Parts: sequence; structure tokens; C-alpha cells
Amino acid sequence: MARVNENYQKLQAGYLFPEIGRRVRAFQEANPEADLIKLGIGDVTLPLAPAVVEAMHAAVDEMGTEAGFRGYGPENGYDFLLDAIREHDYASRGLEIASNEIFVSDGSKQDSGNIQEIFGTGCSLSVTDPSYPVYVDTNVMAGRTGEADEQGYYGGIQYLAANEANGFTPGPPDQRVDLAYLCSPNNPTGAVASRENLGGWVAWARENDAVILFDAAYDAFIQDDSLPRSIYEIEGAKECAIEMRSFSKRSGFTGVRCAYMVIPAALTGSTGSGERVSLRDLWSRRHATKFNSVPYVIQRAAAATFSEQGRAQTQEQVAYYMENARLIREGMTRAGNSVFGGEHAPYIWMRTPDGLSSWEFFDQLLAKAQVVGTPGSGFGPAGEGYFRISAFNSREKVEEALGRITSR
Amino acid sequence: MARVNENYQKLQAGYLFPEIGRRVRAFQEANPEADLIKLGIGDVTLPLAPAVVEAMHAAVDEMGTEAGFRGYGPENGYDFLLDAIREHDYASRGLEIASNEIFVSDGSKQDSGNIQEIFGTGCSLSVTDPSYPVYVDTNVMAGRTGEADEQGYYGGIQYLAANEANGFTPGPPDQRVDLAYLCSPNNPTGAVASRENLGGWVAWARENDAVILFDAAYDAFIQDDSLPRSIYEIEGAKECAIEMRSFSKRSGFTGVRCAYMVIPAALTGSTGSGERVSLRDLWSRRHATKFNSVPYVIQRAAAATFSEQGRAQTQEQVAYYMENARLIREGMTRAGNSVFGGEHAPYIWMRTPDGLSSWEFFDQLLAKAQVVGTPGSGFGPAGEGYFRISAFNSREKVEEALGRITSR
Repeated sequence: MARVNENYQKLQAGYLFPEIGRRVRAFQEANPEADLIKLGIGDVTLPLAPAVVEAMHAAVDEMGTEAGFRGYGPENGYDFLLDAIREHDYASRGLEIASNEIFVSDGSKQDSGNIQEIFGTGCSLSVTDPSYPVYVDTNVMAGRTGEADEQGYYGGIQYLAANEANGFTPGPPDQRVDLAYLCSPNNPTGAVASRENLGGWVAWARENDAVILFDAAYDAFIQDDSLPRSIYEIEGAKECAIEMRSFSKRSGFTGVRCAYMVIPAALTGSTGSGERVSLRDLWSRRHATKFNSVPYVIQRAAAATFSEQGRAQTQEQVAYYMENARLIREGMTRAGNSVFGGEHAPYIWMRTPDGLSSWEFFDQLLAKAQVVGTPGSGFGPAGEGYFRISAFNSREKVEEALGRITSR
Repeated sequence: MARVNENYQKLQAGYLFPEIGRRVRAFQEANPEADLIKLGIGDVTLPLAPAVVEAMHAAVDEMGTEAGFRGYGPENGYDFLLDAIREHDYASRGLEIASNEIFVSDGSKQDSGNIQEIFGTGCSLSVTDPSYPVYVDTNVMAGRTGEADEQGYYGGIQYLAANEANGFTPGPPDQRVDLAYLCSPNNPTGAVASRENLGGWVAWARENDAVILFDAAYDAFIQDDSLPRSIYEIEGAKECAIEMRSFSKRSGFTGVRCAYMVIPAALTGSTGSGERVSLRDLWSRRHATKFNSVPYVIQRAAAATFSEQGRAQTQEQVAYYMENARLIREGMTRAGNSVFGGEHAPYIWMRTPDGLSSWEFFDQLLAKAQVVGTPGSGFGPAGEGYFRISAFNSREKVEEALGRITSR
């Protein structure tokens, strides 16, 4: 009798975004004339940058010729992409990361969901609350947690409240944990960690022999160059942190699929008998066994975002979305809401008005303004009473949405 | 102290193909003038079919326009691809598979490696021996096995010898197991399962409430239309089998990355308390949480292989490789070897000459003929004394390799 993985039964309701999809479809069926504006899922809307389009065409042409055809790629990524990442994302900020510490993948969702596999099932965890649901859900599925309580808190996870009091950037836990998920700029709160905050985390991790899983998928949205874009800007982080970056938001690649993870050579975990094991080598084995490289055409697309034109064009896209963020932040503030984030991130995090629950406000906004946002409670219990609005849409739609919301 | 997943320590040596890569690089460094011919890893060599190239260009153009841009895709795949799969791979052979039973992915390696996650860690397994290493390795990593013995057999796995006596197509195990990996046409032996053989497997699975994980990545290489291409051609298989198919070999997509898995709605597993749970629903949750759809451009490429031109062009590629297979089969037979497979699969499986071990023959072939093949022992202990030769190369290289081997 094939037994199923019963940890899946512990998962709460559906994964957030499919649930939003279901409610939106139901609304559309009941109101076929409604002109919905989606500021929910955080999906980019601008077309691919011309430099990217050009690089993809060239790569497709290569693949159609005998001389240019490429089959299986190098497991961790082609050198042309690894080199571009090393140079532009790290060396340009004075950070030395080696090619064999970089693993190109098809998404940070995958990386942040899969990385737990190289750790023991007995590892304890912390997440900030609210946080990206994949961190928690993949650990639930792997059996690293207990059941959820009535509030949605799983046993075995330490939840660090990200709230107005700490500027949505909590410090490290006071109990020790083995694995700590951190995301900056933060999804969903839009908060960005200061150098001091990250410094506290790194010091804590080194003291406690913990590993920080640092999700920097939104690094490109940081507007103040003195803020850390990489956790490796903090001294000592190479001995305690794994970093994830993505082309999804910085280059409009949500439908293109490319990301990467950095696991420094110096980073180790422990066996039961106290032997130190290279986490990079473990991940390398995992990557070689359960993954098969990113399509050549896609890696060429990612590399093109680092060319002079590619950088200029994708930075322009980021600036476009950040102007949307400013409009939303200011519009919602003028409408009398308490608004956070949106300065170094494409997400605005707001307190729901009138004491509404997150899903109540979701339904109200959908019904009254035909605007789709994301209920804060979908990101964890401490997100209850908050709401995420995404800056990923056209200027016209954002302005139209703000008009509807503030005039309603 | 972050504890690592110690199951990784149980893994034998490196994953097969990286180890081949290491030996080949060492040989090349020592013999920089050597003109190597690679008939090892099973990677396609022909350029992408014109219909595929055309579809990819069109999709890239769409992605560069506001109207045509696509962000996150539907989790299981775009309807245009699901419909094409349903129609051409199933309905055309009288099989009814629904769109919501198909999950588009970035590779059968990933699918066959990830599928075990939805099953309990206590599930018992069988694999044919030899078999594709990913089946065993991913279960070792998930903790579903004991340690390997001196021969390389892991505790907790039932190995079903595929040998000359059973035509390399063993029947089901006599002890019961929960999950059975099966691959036809087979990698590495090139053997193909008959309708009777698969019928025996399906009857056994239904009797024992077991699940068959059926890897049909090489279905397009079957030359005899009366042989089953899908396990669903066997009555009752929808209640006991998951099927995996790939565009990698049938359409030359090893560097393009697209595959799919079918999990019929009727297929269930059991909880500890005996409740039946839909395996499709479990995988759907896993797919939504740890995966993020295949790039739009790649899904368009895959769909193009089903157009009239696409089918004709990719079938021509398959025929080209199968002619290579015939040349290798006949050439190696003439040279006095015992040769198997290669009639409905792009792999020729041969007994190593002179009682050499698989790796001894690998090294000898590399040194004497500068030809790279794959040691049979890399696919499991019963592969010792055998060797796999792949038909994926140009006609000229295949002929040159045969000339070198037979004249040495």
C-alpha cells in the first residue's frame, strides 16, 4: 500500500496565490463586465527589454545550426552567465564570489523551496512573520514542523514578528535555531534591512552555528546605494549565509525563469558526529541529481541583462515600477491609511482600514474597486490586518486603481 | 548547529555523468591532440528543428511587446501545450487523458527525482537493475534506504535484475513493494517492454496497491507501432501508474528543457489511517509550492513539435539517430561482441569483451579509440560487465568511432 507523505495534510488551506486566483475567477464569473486591475500576485507587466529580446533571438538562431547547437549545459550554469554575475552583482560592490560558488537555477521560488533538502529533518527554523509562504510550506512538506495551531503557527518554527515597532525588520531570535530565513528587501512588507540589522543577524548566526537563508530577489529595487544589496557585504557572512537572487523582478523574467543561489565554499554544516560538511558540495550533489540546468536561450537572456544596454534598459523598468510604488504609497497615505514599504521594494504594505481582516479587505476592494491585492494574512499570522499592494502594473492601471479606491 | 541531511553521505561516489566528465577531462589534458568521439552521456547533437526555431522566434517577439508579454504562466502548463499533448500523445492512440492530469515540467530527470516527495519516507521501492541512477539516488537522499553494501545495493530497495535471461525486461517483484520504477524503452539497456510484460506489472500493482512510476522518456524511438508507448495502453493502469515523458530526446530538447508527467485523477495513495488521497492533488500542491512553470518561449517550442511540420522534422531526427543505432549494433556485433537493444531505443547495450569490468572497458576504449561510452556498472551492480553506447552523434562520428573500435 503506497503511503503518501502525510506532512502535506498539515498544510493550511491552499497556497496563497491559487486561492486568490480562485476568488478572482469567481468574481469575474459573477461580474463578467468588471474591469479588474491586478495589484496582487506581484507579476511584472513590462515587455522584455530589447537587449534581452535580441540576445534570445541570437541564441535561438544558434540552437538551429549544427555549429551553434547546445545540448545539456554545465550543471551550475554557463561560464558566460556565471562570469557576468560574479562581475556585476559582486565584484562591482567589492565582493569576491567564485564561479563555483554560484548555482544558476530556474527560480528563487525553487531555490528557497529546495535548499532545505540538504539539511537534516531535525533542524529548527525561524522565519520572520509575515514571510513568503514557500519558506514555511516546504519545511512543513519535508516534515520539519508539527501541526499548525488555530492561528496558523506550526510547531517547531520560531516566528519573529515583523511589525511597526521594529520597522518590520526583526533581529535574530533569542532562542537558538539552526536555519533562519531572511528576505530583504522584504516580500511582503517592502521593508529593507539596514547594515546594522544584518550585522546583528550575521553575528548571531556565527555565534550559534546557524545558517541564514538570505532571499535577495528584490535587491535591484534598493534606491539608496548605502544599503546592503547582498548579505556578503557584512563581514563574516560567507561563513554563515546562503544568498538567493532572481532575474524575475529585476529584469521582468517571471515568464522567462532564471535565478541563482550563492553558497560560499567556506560554509559548512555538521553531521551527528560533529564532522563538518561543505554545504556547497551537498547542494552541488543535489543540483546534479535533481536538476538539469537552465535552457541555453534563457541563460543568454539573463546574461544580456548585464550588458551596458541591458543594464540601462532593466534599470529603467525598475524605475518605472518604483514610480508606481511612490504613487501608491502617497495615494494610499492621502486616503488615510497607514502605509509602509514601497521605498526600496515594489511592495506597499498597509494596515487594513476599519479593523477589517485581511481577506475581508481583499473581498471589499475586489467588490468596490475591482482591484486585486494580496491579503497580509496569507503571509503568516502576523500579516493579519495588513494588505500588500504590488507596484507591478502599468502607470495607467495604477492611477486608475488609486482613483477608484480613493473615490469609493 | 545546522545539521546536514546525512542521507547524502550514503551516496556512492559521484553521480555517474560527472565522473565520466572528470575522466574525460583528465584524458584530454594528458592527450591534448586526441580527437574524442562522445557516445557517452546520451546528449542529442542535431540542431533544433526549423519549426521549433520558428516558434521560439515568434514567442520571443511576443515577449518583447506589451500585448504579447507573459509573466508567470499557469502552474501546470499553458493550455496550448496541454491540449497538444492530450491530442497527439494520447487521443491519437485512443487514450483519454485530461488536461488537469498533465503537469508540464523542465525535465524528466526532475520529475523522476521529485515524484518520490509526495510519498511517505517509509515506502518500499523496486528498481530494475541496471537503471537510471536518479531513481535510486533521490530515494537515498530522501532517507528511504539504508546504507549501500559492498556491491552497491542499498538496503530497503528491491533490485530486479534485467539480464540476458529475461531479455532485460524483468517482471514485477515477488515480494511486495510500494513504489516501482520502470523505464521503457529502457535506459540504459535499450530494451522495450512488451504489452504482456507491462500487463503483468499493472496486474501486480493493482493487486498490491503499489504505484508504478513509468518513465517513457524514449517513447518516440519505438519502431514497432504495436508495442506500447504509454503504460495507459494497458487496461487498469490509470489506477496504478504515473507516466513521465520528455521532449529531450524525441525533439532534441536536452538544452531546451521541457517534459511532462501524467498523474491520473483516479490514482490514490493511502494515509496511515487508511484514508485514500489523490496523488494528483498532492503533486499539484508540490508543483505549486516548489516549481514555477516552464518558460513561455520553451512551452511554445514544445508545442511546435506537435505541428505537422514539427512532427515530420522531429521524426526525421529520431530516424537519423536510429540509423546510427543500427550501424553501432551491427558494427559491434560484427566485431564479435554480444550486443542488445538499439532497435526501439537510441542505446546499445553490450557485454564487455575479455571479461573486462565496465570501467576497465571505458578506460580502454578511451585510450585506444578515443571513444567515450558509459560504463554499465554506473547504472547499478547488475550493469557490471556491460557497456552503453549512445546513438546520439553525427553519422560521420559514429562511422569514425566504429572504424576505430573495430580496427584497434
